[in-house]
Amino acid sequence: MSLDAVLTRIDTDLPDAIDRLMALLRIPSISTDPAFKSDCDAAADVLVADLQSLGVDAEKRPTPGHPMVVGHIAGDGPHLLFYGHYDVQPVDPLELWDRDPFDPELQDTAKGQVIRGRGSSDDKGQLMTFVEACRAWKAVHGSLPCRMTFFFEGEEESGSPSLVPFMKANAEELKSDLALICDTGLFDSRVPAITTMLRGLLGEEITITGPKKDLHSGMYGGAAINPIRVLSRIIGSLHDETGRITVPGFYEGVPEISNALRAQWEDLRFDEAAFLKDVGLSHLAGEQGRTALEMLWSRPTCEVNGIIGGYTGDGFKTVLPSVASAKISFRLVGTQDPFAIRESFRTMVRDMLPPDCSVEFSDHGASMAGAFDTSGASFEAARKALSDEWPDPAAYIGCGGSIPIAGHFLSILGTTPMLIGFGKDDDQIHSPNEKYDVESFHKGIRSWARILAALT
Amino acid sequence: MSLDAVLTRIDTDLPDAIDRLMALLRIPSISTDPAFKSDCDAAADVLVADLQSLGVDAEKRPTPGHPMVVGHIAGDGPHLLFYGHYDVQPVDPLELWDRDPFDPELQDTAKGQVIRGRGSSDDKGQLMTFVEACRAWKAVHGSLPCRMTFFFEGEEESGSPSLVPFMKANAEELKSDLALICDTGLFDSRVPAITTMLRGLLGEEITITGPKKDLHSGMYGGAAINPIRVLSRIIGSLHDETGRITVPGFYEGVPEISNALRAQWEDLRFDEAAFLKDVGLSHLAGEQGRTALEMLWSRPTCEVNGIIGGYTGDGFKTVLPSVASAKISFRLVGTQDPFAIRESFRTMVRDMLPPDCSVEFSDHGASMAGAFDTSGASFEAARKALSDEWPDPAAYIGCGGSIPIAGHFLSILGTTPMLIGFGKDDDQIHSPNEKYDVESFHKGIRSWARILAALT
Repeated sequence: MSLDAVLTRIDTDLPDAIDRLMALLRIPSISTDPAFKSDCDAAADVLVADLQSLGVDAEKRPTPGHPMVVGHIAGDGPHLLFYGHYDVQPVDPLELWDRDPFDPELQDTAKGQVIRGRGSSDDKGQLMTFVEACRAWKAVHGSLPCRMTFFFEGEEESGSPSLVPFMKANAEELKSDLALICDTGLFDSRVPAITTMLRGLLGEEITITGPKKDLHSGMYGGAAINPIRVLSRIIGSLHDETGRITVPGFYEGVPEISNALRAQWEDLRFDEAAFLKDVGLSHLAGEQGRTALEMLWSRPTCEVNGIIGGYTGDGFKTVLPSVASAKISFRLVGTQDPFAIRESFRTMVRDMLPPDCSVEFSDHGASMAGAFDTSGASFEAARKALSDEWPDPAAYIGCGGSIPIAGHFLSILGTTPMLIGFGKDDDQIHSPNEKYDVESFHKGIRSWARILAALT
Repeated sequence: MSLDAVLTRIDTDLPDAIDRLMALLRIPSISTDPAFKSDCDAAADVLVADLQSLGVDAEKRPTPGHPMVVGHIAGDGPHLLFYGHYDVQPVDPLELWDRDPFDPELQDTAKGQVIRGRGSSDDKGQLMTFVEACRAWKAVHGSLPCRMTFFFEGEEESGSPSLVPFMKANAEELKSDLALICDTGLFDSRVPAITTMLRGLLGEEITITGPKKDLHSGMYGGAAINPIRVLSRIIGSLHDETGRITVPGFYEGVPEISNALRAQWEDLRFDEAAFLKDVGLSHLAGEQGRTALEMLWSRPTCEVNGIIGGYTGDGFKTVLPSVASAKISFRLVGTQDPFAIRESFRTMVRDMLPPDCSVEFSDHGASMAGAFDTSGASFEAARKALSDEWPDPAAYIGCGGSIPIAGHFLSILGTTPMLIGFGKDDDQIHSPNEKYDVESFHKGIRSWARILAALT
């Protein structure tokens, strides 16, 4: 049977597939930092060449930021689009990495072999699962299984500023029957998943200025306003004692999940204690009265992702700083409106400012949450294909993260997104020592081959 | 008259005196940063050589940190000790400097000529006012006016860890009739001052750890504790709505000033509006119901001098950090006990920690406030000498800063400290573009010559 031949080919080609991923991981394509602009470009070039080697008509397409990679290949059957991103997160704090984040390595661990390096899981490793499945298919069959479009982004980790304009400008070209997205995780190492609920994201940076210059805290302390204290007070007021967010109107559009979905999630028997223990914790810190899966999948959040002000070097400096700033993000659910929340948040911050303080806001992206219709036949076909590859049957799950592209496919192109990925909770994405299990990579490639066979 | 000859000599030698100060300013003797250890050593060497050129038996004396410079010269009359410090503050944020902080320059400004560079005012320029007065005296008279001890420290800007042990170990050698300290300011550009009240200082660094590693705020946000939020809430709770500090027991030993001193301070007609406007402010931000001079001279404070946590680079990173930390200082008055306050503060912070968070404290120094007896004849003599040099009569004032050495002279050596300095409020000490007015330097040298004549 032809699928078996493809799966066998995937198995024998795995060492070479890992080598190809390693080459991509060596490119430090950190999209948020302008110092790595040429590296982002280089990563796009590698992918264009790789797609071309599969017979895909691929090219690098310019944007005001990092380029898109777009490729098409003709074929019969459904028109499938595949999306992934080739950019990666910054690597600080660098001292917590066990090795150069961009000198990837195959390592043996107690839980099996892993590919260690920035981007191994998020998202270069995941992106390559699909490309490698296509490569094996082509090696066996001489062609890809259907009409396909490849669409790789280079700004996912920095708010995707060029994405929506590009999708709108190229809507006819990108429209397809189904958009496959590989940027999510397994439910656990036995249970594969199709993610059907994603949280939205609102990113804000606030910079508070008090005195027009840094002051000596002896000469001015006690009389002059201190922007770190102002900022801390604002941050401290964003949640009430029960963990609810205090931004006015914030909970408009936050639905309670259905009893059916609640029952399904309970069936997953999520191990809260193990989830927390993995990262050194033992208590849920979110809204009182919610389960961990609710907190992560169906409840909105407000987190501070960074804060800085005054003297932060070694030793001590009795400075009363002029400026303090924080990066704050909101995860959104249901029909919460990121733009309305942004305005409400900014108004709240302005209202809390004491005299002599000013505030500047920077916009770091805004996207609505997504919940996708799984009633089409392709979802059950994909679910069955995944269940054939992994030990336990596949589940429909939520995801705490934000993958704005999923909503954009639906709203801009009218194309249903299907989110399937093979990351694990301990992949340490966005953290030091990111890794991707060889099992995720290998069975991920095999999963896509099975899904391509099932959909075409 | 011999004083006139010294003053004339000071006037003609001023250009050379400025050149000598410039050479000292070129040495980046930042004591808090270990990277500048050899520079601190080099600054001490320059001062030893300079004192030796005046016939002083001077040497560099080792400590566990940066060296002390100690010099003696015999003579008749009172035994005067002079104290200054050769170390300087760090220079960040470097981008706010108009020029290299360690490439000093003579600049013309609307308010007159200034010497621009790190340490020009705090404290190298001030220290050199006394050395230059001695140089002129020796040039005219062939010897210094009395028995003198020079005592220069290299750790004043980093909490003076070696000072008390050194003073205790060398108490007999350092005891004198009067300790002159040049590290304070004029009241304003017309009114010179002898500072008789200094605030104490308690420096604490707190580091809060939540998850054992940085997490993805999508995958964990809403469920896992965020140490930036915990730290912000603690900082936000250190003051109540009226600006009072909430650390239990903090106000024990905080006296109200006498009606006589209050009247004297009112006579100074301190221009609060101008004081604030100079730094871009218009409102007093401290304890409600207090004047600016009270806030700065006779009331205790709690300030945050630095804060950092999470991602603070360009762009955005949706990290939920493992660690957040802040540097916090308390200015103390009256008989407030810094050690009792440290314990109370640490207990308060520990009591505010939610489950799963731990805290580490670092000690950055602790000193009591000082208030010095001005009834001795030398104070009136020095006040008259200062009044002869400057447009308006000299005043006894308080100081918001902390100069622990003043209290140590009294408690360890039994020597009365006399604090006289020529800094101005706009010198930008501890800030970018620090400067010292040539007027401060020139009239400062002349002031010391007058004081030496008056005391001997």
